[in-house]
Amino acid sequence: MMETGVSDSIASPFLTANTPGTMKWYGWGVDAGGFEAVGRPGLWPYAKAQLGLGESSPATLLPAPESIALPNRRVSPEIENALVAIVGEDGFSCGHRDRLLHAYGKSTRDVWRIRHGRVDYAPDAVAFPQSEEQIIAIVRAAGEYDVALVPFGGGTNVAGCLELAHTESRFVLAVNLRRYNRVLDIDAISGTVRAQSGILGPDLELALEPHGLTLGHFPDSFTYSTLGGWIATRSSGMLSDGYGNPEEMLLSLRMATPAGMIETRDVPHASNGVDPKRLCIGSEGALGIITEVTMSLRAAPIKREFRGYLFPDFASGIEAMRACMRGGAMPAMTRLNDIDKTHLTAAFRRASAPLEALVARLVKRYLRDVKKLDLKRACLLIAAFEGDAGAIRWQRRRTERLYKHYGGIGIGPAAGNAFAEGKFDFPYIRDFLIEHDVVVDVCESSTVWSNVVSLYDDAMTALRDALGAGGRRAWVGCHASHSYAAGTSLYFSFAFTALRDADGRIDPWAELAHHAAVKQAALNCFSRHRATLSHHHAVGTDHLPWLAAEAPVAGGTAVDTMKAVLDPQGIMNPGKLTTRSGDGRR
Amino acid sequence: MMETGVSDSIASPFLTANTPGTMKWYGWGVDAGGFEAVGRPGLWPYAKAQLGLGESSPATLLPAPESIALPNRRVSPEIENALVAIVGEDGFSCGHRDRLLHAYGKSTRDVWRIRHGRVDYAPDAVAFPQSEEQIIAIVRAAGEYDVALVPFGGGTNVAGCLELAHTESRFVLAVNLRRYNRVLDIDAISGTVRAQSGILGPDLELALEPHGLTLGHFPDSFTYSTLGGWIATRSSGMLSDGYGNPEEMLLSLRMATPAGMIETRDVPHASNGVDPKRLCIGSEGALGIITEVTMSLRAAPIKREFRGYLFPDFASGIEAMRACMRGGAMPAMTRLNDIDKTHLTAAFRRASAPLEALVARLVKRYLRDVKKLDLKRACLLIAAFEGDAGAIRWQRRRTERLYKHYGGIGIGPAAGNAFAEGKFDFPYIRDFLIEHDVVVDVCESSTVWSNVVSLYDDAMTALRDALGAGGRRAWVGCHASHSYAAGTSLYFSFAFTALRDADGRIDPWAELAHHAAVKQAALNCFSRHRATLSHHHAVGTDHLPWLAAEAPVAGGTAVDTMKAVLDPQGIMNPGKLTTRSGDGRR
Repeated sequence: MMETGVSDSIASPFLTANTPGTMKWYGWGVDAGGFEAVGRPGLWPYAKAQLGLGESSPATLLPAPESIALPNRRVSPEIENALVAIVGEDGFSCGHRDRLLHAYGKSTRDVWRIRHGRVDYAPDAVAFPQSEEQIIAIVRAAGEYDVALVPFGGGTNVAGCLELAHTESRFVLAVNLRRYNRVLDIDAISGTVRAQSGILGPDLELALEPHGLTLGHFPDSFTYSTLGGWIATRSSGMLSDGYGNPEEMLLSLRMATPAGMIETRDVPHASNGVDPKRLCIGSEGALGIITEVTMSLRAAPIKREFRGYLFPDFASGIEAMRACMRGGAMPAMTRLNDIDKTHLTAAFRRASAPLEALVARLVKRYLRDVKKLDLKRACLLIAAFEGDAGAIRWQRRRTERLYKHYGGIGIGPAAGNAFAEGKFDFPYIRDFLIEHDVVVDVCESSTVWSNVVSLYDDAMTALRDALGAGGRRAWVGCHASHSYAAGTSLYFSFAFTALRDADGRIDPWAELAHHAAVKQAALNCFSRHRATLSHHHAVGTDHLPWLAAEAPVAGGTAVDTMKAVLDPQGIMNPGKLTTRSGDGRR
Repeated sequence: MMETGVSDSIASPFLTANTPGTMKWYGWGVDAGGFEAVGRPGLWPYAKAQLGLGESSPATLLPAPESIALPNRRVSPEIENALVAIVGEDGFSCGHRDRLLHAYGKSTRDVWRIRHGRVDYAPDAVAFPQSEEQIIAIVRAAGEYDVALVPFGGGTNVAGCLELAHTESRFVLAVNLRRYNRVLDIDAISGTVRAQSGILGPDLELALEPHGLTLGHFPDSFTYSTLGGWIATRSSGMLSDGYGNPEEMLLSLRMATPAGMIETRDVPHASNGVDPKRLCIGSEGALGIITEVTMSLRAAPIKREFRGYLFPDFASGIEAMRACMRGGAMPAMTRLNDIDKTHLTAAFRRASAPLEALVARLVKRYLRDVKKLDLKRACLLIAAFEGDAGAIRWQRRRTERLYKHYGGIGIGPAAGNAFAEGKFDFPYIRDFLIEHDVVVDVCESSTVWSNVVSLYDDAMTALRDALGAGGRRAWVGCHASHSYAAGTSLYFSFAFTALRDADGRIDPWAELAHHAAVKQAALNCFSRHRATLSHHHAVGTDHLPWLAAEAPVAGGTAVDTMKAVLDPQGIMNPGKLTTRSGDGRR
């Protein structure tokens, strides 16, 4: 068996020019760099004030990847030969780096542990199938040889979906779908695309562009996440207000389960009993591997405009968002920052050109003196309008009328464009801070409009209380986005600076425990409010303790009801979405 | 045990003033009448030309309900006492009329059989629970005593959901939910309503009206169907283009299964694994009884305008509908009639006032002479616009620009209003024709835009071929409605006149067999086109033979995967949504 497989090099020959390879083992993205602090004059002053961090803060050095100890690899020539027979020598690896690359997803916990040299789980091998036939054969072989399978899309998950939380006695195979990434068919009349589940966001959109079509799904992970992953985790993207979520865009799919295929037809709506698509959506690899996916598309807009608005406070911004949803004036995106996130946004701006700075000063004076807006307390809302010029004008007019009613004041496209440009940067910024021993993470929920402000207040208090334990310097902020007729999501970002001993050293595991306590405080708060454990980050291992209380299905979970038939051996992503102990066997 | 229960009288004291009682045993609605042929001068000439039917056509006499033989009733004092202990004497009946009223739904097959005195199935008793506790207790008792349960909402189903197709050896209890019909909570801030599943459409909308809110779900069955039934069957309403379908409006629910409760929270979107709501949506009573339901609402529109448009042919109308969906100009409703349905619509119009007749003549001349529209081949499209005056203007302008591009010509609100007024009349017209020995029925499907015209052509041919067998006079027409980004539904209506022997008598069972052959031809055609067995009428017993091929789940159906855990005894609506033979036990 070869010790080095296809993914040992970062840029894989199997990927198209537009497809980045597997991300680097120690954080987000493929490059060594990612985020540049220079050119953002507000950054260090803000970080110093909030987190006690300065330009002189030391950056932790990375261990050499070869030096990181992985859990012992189970060796089984029989299983390995069977898998090589399916995917070929070049589609199989049990090399150290491949095991390392498939050990975790990209959560803060994952990145923190791996940067500090700790890997609690690693698959025994990785397979890179290239066809549905190979995927089906892998699932069948796994049943035959009692192999546990962990489907692996872009590897971007931040909830522990890719890690086995329990010690597994069986051979564990990560099934990396990045070579299973072709567009199979575009039906330009119907506005649909059929593709293999391993396709990445940019590849899919690039294939649609010549047809004037778009999927319109732009999660933060867009560059590195896969179509299948979006379905399996119930993802949501930046423009979900306008385009809906992938689960609504999904027209049909095929999923290989240990018991056989789930297969649906390309029908826009059916009254054909319990919808089999819905057994696959959100299944997080625990029932099977999604193979072919057909998505319903939209016309690519002629234009998209991001604009900024300031509201006197968070609650009035929420009221404005609610009024828009109720009044049918919803932009394709609305994102309301609370005070702290508004200040953070300002601090992260790139250096202004002199003219821009002048305009900003004049606008500030106008807002303060004429509009009587308290800029220290104002909350920034970013809205996106799209379509042709007439549609944008119409949407803006209706939206701004409602914004105005709730005290919102337009500050033009600059703030909007700054947001749009930095949209996919957050994970890089997180890694940059982690490098400086600041633990940065997020947690998000959703609730009905009447409970939004109350949930916001309580969760902020819970987070602040938890963050400050031990005297750590901390920051927390929130934005509301992803709105629906009945409510919206709240997305909390938090950061705390690791404590240092007299020698200036940190205890990474004490900080990780603190991080877990903070997340637990937030999740408990969500649960008390009967809000959800996650709006779009999945359950994984991190949120599993809250699942059964949130959505009890006859004393278990939804997946519990199906696992006995679809995965009787419990080989699919063991321990996920199930309340049964151990490996998910029944 | 009393032989007469609550539902022996048509107008039940348990229902609110706004709630019609259980429908009459021999057809749609509660009244003896329902449809008036007088005042529609075009009706008889059209019926005569198409179906050989005239004003002198005899109407079949109804049997006395008491004379209709029901299958022998299983008697079990033990079970009956247990049920009375739960729902009280006044909530339980095993009387002849109650058994008759719960024997069937309201499909053509159902109405035809019962009018000809044939009842193949009847429950042994009917329970009328009034609370969730009673429903849970019924499900529990059913498990204990091995009783088969058939949930019964409004009794409007047209796919055989309410009839057991196989002989059942166990005691069978229909669970009528019409006393379980209260609004529990309206959250006017969030725009949500929580109600008991047995509430009827009008009661729900009336409760929302003072809050300026609407659910916006208006199926043909609106007056008599229930909230729980809409969810359990994946229903769709007239305005689904604008409001979506109930499955999208559903915020949360509770369902009592034999294994315990399924319960979800009021969250607008969650990434919490496989969505438990989705196990209940479309479950057609085969997994449990839906109890409390929370729906997401919309602002009631200030105004709703129905307007008519004529297109040169069906295909150009379809293109216009597609362009609207793609171009984001979708009215709240679009309904495109084919040629035959356009003529039918014209024939069913009420007598015009003299002035209206003059205008119609002038419009016709204009269309023919100026617009060069072939009125014999023109297809009528009805569109609904709603909102405030500005929104309607905006929607109309964008829509009509696209209509014009595909040859559509506006003919004003008269045709639209005629449609809106007659919207809920179809089942009465069907019954009126059945009374005259004309078998009238519908079947509907959905497919992607690129396949719509092809499916239309093939299904029309299949229906015409099947209808004409035996030399019967027949009519068939179609409309497209319920559009989505990727496609639309096609709704076929057909009618054939029963053959008469030399004595002028019909053989009702030969006609029923002919009817079955016609439906089978349509369903086979849908299946060949990989379209769905039903867009919004459910699977029931009538469409079950096509289910496993349409949506195979590891060789079975979606419900098969859950039944073993949620309903291991197979007591819930046996034989539904499952490919397992017999009573659905495993």
